[in-house]
Amino acid sequence: MRPLKSLISLGEAKELVRANISPIEKTEEIGIDMAVDRVLAEEVISSLDIPPYSRAAMDGYAVRAEDTFKAGKYKPVHLRCLDNVHAGEVPTVPVEEGCCIQIATGAMIPEGADAVMKVENTEREEDDIMMFTPVYPGAYVSKMGEDVKEGAPVLSPGAYLVPSRVGVLAAIGRDRVKVYSRPRVSIVPTGDEVAPLGGELRKGQVFDINSHTLQSMIRENGCEPVLHPIVKDEWDSLSSVLKEAATSSDMVVLSGGSSAGERDVLEDVINEMGEMIFHGVQIKPGKPTIFAKVEGKPLFGMPGYPTSCLTNGYIFLVDAVRSMARLPKREFKVVELPLGKRLMSQLGRDMFLTVAIRDGEVFPVFKESGTITSMAYADGWVMIPTNVDMIDKGVEVKVTIFQ
Amino acid sequence: MRPLKSLISLGEAKELVRANISPIEKTEEIGIDMAVDRVLAEEVISSLDIPPYSRAAMDGYAVRAEDTFKAGKYKPVHLRCLDNVHAGEVPTVPVEEGCCIQIATGAMIPEGADAVMKVENTEREEDDIMMFTPVYPGAYVSKMGEDVKEGAPVLSPGAYLVPSRVGVLAAIGRDRVKVYSRPRVSIVPTGDEVAPLGGELRKGQVFDINSHTLQSMIRENGCEPVLHPIVKDEWDSLSSVLKEAATSSDMVVLSGGSSAGERDVLEDVINEMGEMIFHGVQIKPGKPTIFAKVEGKPLFGMPGYPTSCLTNGYIFLVDAVRSMARLPKREFKVVELPLGKRLMSQLGRDMFLTVAIRDGEVFPVFKESGTITSMAYADGWVMIPTNVDMIDKGVEVKVTIFQ
Repeated sequence: MRPLKSLISLGEAKELVRANISPIEKTEEIGIDMAVDRVLAEEVISSLDIPPYSRAAMDGYAVRAEDTFKAGKYKPVHLRCLDNVHAGEVPTVPVEEGCCIQIATGAMIPEGADAVMKVENTEREEDDIMMFTPVYPGAYVSKMGEDVKEGAPVLSPGAYLVPSRVGVLAAIGRDRVKVYSRPRVSIVPTGDEVAPLGGELRKGQVFDINSHTLQSMIRENGCEPVLHPIVKDEWDSLSSVLKEAATSSDMVVLSGGSSAGERDVLEDVINEMGEMIFHGVQIKPGKPTIFAKVEGKPLFGMPGYPTSCLTNGYIFLVDAVRSMARLPKREFKVVELPLGKRLMSQLGRDMFLTVAIRDGEVFPVFKESGTITSMAYADGWVMIPTNVDMIDKGVEVKVTIFQ
Repeated sequence: MRPLKSLISLGEAKELVRANISPIEKTEEIGIDMAVDRVLAEEVISSLDIPPYSRAAMDGYAVRAEDTFKAGKYKPVHLRCLDNVHAGEVPTVPVEEGCCIQIATGAMIPEGADAVMKVENTEREEDDIMMFTPVYPGAYVSKMGEDVKEGAPVLSPGAYLVPSRVGVLAAIGRDRVKVYSRPRVSIVPTGDEVAPLGGELRKGQVFDINSHTLQSMIRENGCEPVLHPIVKDEWDSLSSVLKEAATSSDMVVLSGGSSAGERDVLEDVINEMGEMIFHGVQIKPGKPTIFAKVEGKPLFGMPGYPTSCLTNGYIFLVDAVRSMARLPKREFKVVELPLGKRLMSQLGRDMFLTVAIRDGEVFPVFKESGTITSMAYADGWVMIPTNVDMIDKGVEVKVTIFQ
């Protein structure tokens, strides 16, 4: 067993990860029905004026504004209604002096008219419309192109497609759009004792937990997880799988490898095939975390214990995959609540503790129970900074919530 | 045109929506590779002990603890190493008095041994292992079943499957899981001037914006949007489509219908087919919002203007579809920043204003520009409560961020 290289701080580790992740360049065209939460990869130019025609912004009558200038509450002007234009129709007659045309919200303003008189300010007797207030030219008219001109840029590459921006694409009639592809992240489970799900365990085996935790985390953060079969902890298998995974995807995450022997093999393979960027971080759990480049692709080696792998995923992987996918930083919900129990930590390490919230108090779940129980009941985690070794019961702590 | 019924407050409207939405009962079985962010619909019982066998928690030597009791820093005990057990292997010989077996983290504890001596506390000379510290029985051994016992419940129906809980399912070997189905939400676009995307506009037509905004919002909040073709604003079409939509899905959302005439037809159809719960809320925009039940299914009638439809979606629809899908409440990011410009509101209405954040200041986007431009540049919204009519430049406001 070889000692870990000197440990680096959490801040340095995060900085090294950031510096070695490149946003994805690959793009694809998709239907806008699936575009939400994707990232735009084209300059979107409007192919039309919006509105595409001058239209009524209210139900009422299309008028020549000057015909209404003398109208008042007690001396209405009388205009003759020539026609009725519904939304979606093309007016067939123009508005002439002394006349008006009934119009619905969204309908096309007839030729000759330059304003809309709201129906609330009128009274009708057959074709004689009384108008009790003047309107200025342009009143309640949305002018053709006043919102967006044909040829104007409406969205730029990199725009995150929230529902409102999908609405913008729809407004200019786009049913397909170019977006950045979801980065492919290979997950390589290792560990000679690890067995795939769905079958029976042989004696001495455990089911593969970490690659499924990681797969979920990668999927919910905008990337496409690619789960590889479980690899034996030996040079030949590991090096050939890593080479294949690195060339066929945008990032590689190894899960497992909890014994020193396994870590040694992995370290040798990485040093031979690529560049070790760090191996060992001043955090607990997660000290033996690896970050490297293999075939030019970033590679994470996650710690083997399921809770360590989980908190490490939240600390490093979520930000890394989102920045590769060009997604905005994940904003976790954080609540501040008192501790229900004293917490002990270790000086010189940032400690990440999975916790449950019960009756408004925060309890560590790992100390009370085993790994799986703690993963089932954990609501989030608490970070205890490197210079704190104890936090008393009752002290408020910040809990970052998983969901 | 008929007047709206008396308007109700935003609080009353939200309460009525809550009271009329039922969580989905339909379930389906899916692979755990797709289970993240779904909601568990079964009681998950462990089919095995975890760990499934007693195993080493450290690299070192499996020992009988009592053989080490006399060990000290300057007087090591000597134990004879009989074998070496790797992870995934089944030990072939037991540990006898005065002996030990080398063991890797995660490997099965051999018969006879009751503790693990960490490798750091030993020195090896061929088969002679010197141990420089005593260990207590159970040291560095994870006992079979100590985490979860076979037959014990590990996750309950309603659990939101964050990555850690997917890891729990993996731990007990489950590759498939029963989850609640995603509720189907029918979107029915109406409006005689509205045209589908991807084609050419005829004169007097605009592209359908709202149903795509709503589709995106429904999809990113855990439901399955079902987009219907655009419906004419007339009794026969509307009533037959609504009947079909309501019977074939769990909720119906109508988008469009901005003119009074269209709203009247819709109101009549709803009153005939089902029960109008409210029509008209003291909010701006979004006053003419409809909430009803048709064929026993909740139905929203969204306002026709794209920004009104958008903010209404955030106010009512997001919570409604998530509660139907049994998902936790959406936690939006909220930032507090100073206004870059004075805001005017209207007493007696809660006002929702889409805003952009520029250089750390908040600007209304709707007032400066048209609908589509404002949707393209809006970062979120500000709510101005009913009793405030003006907020000065420089005053801090809370912006809820779309992403």
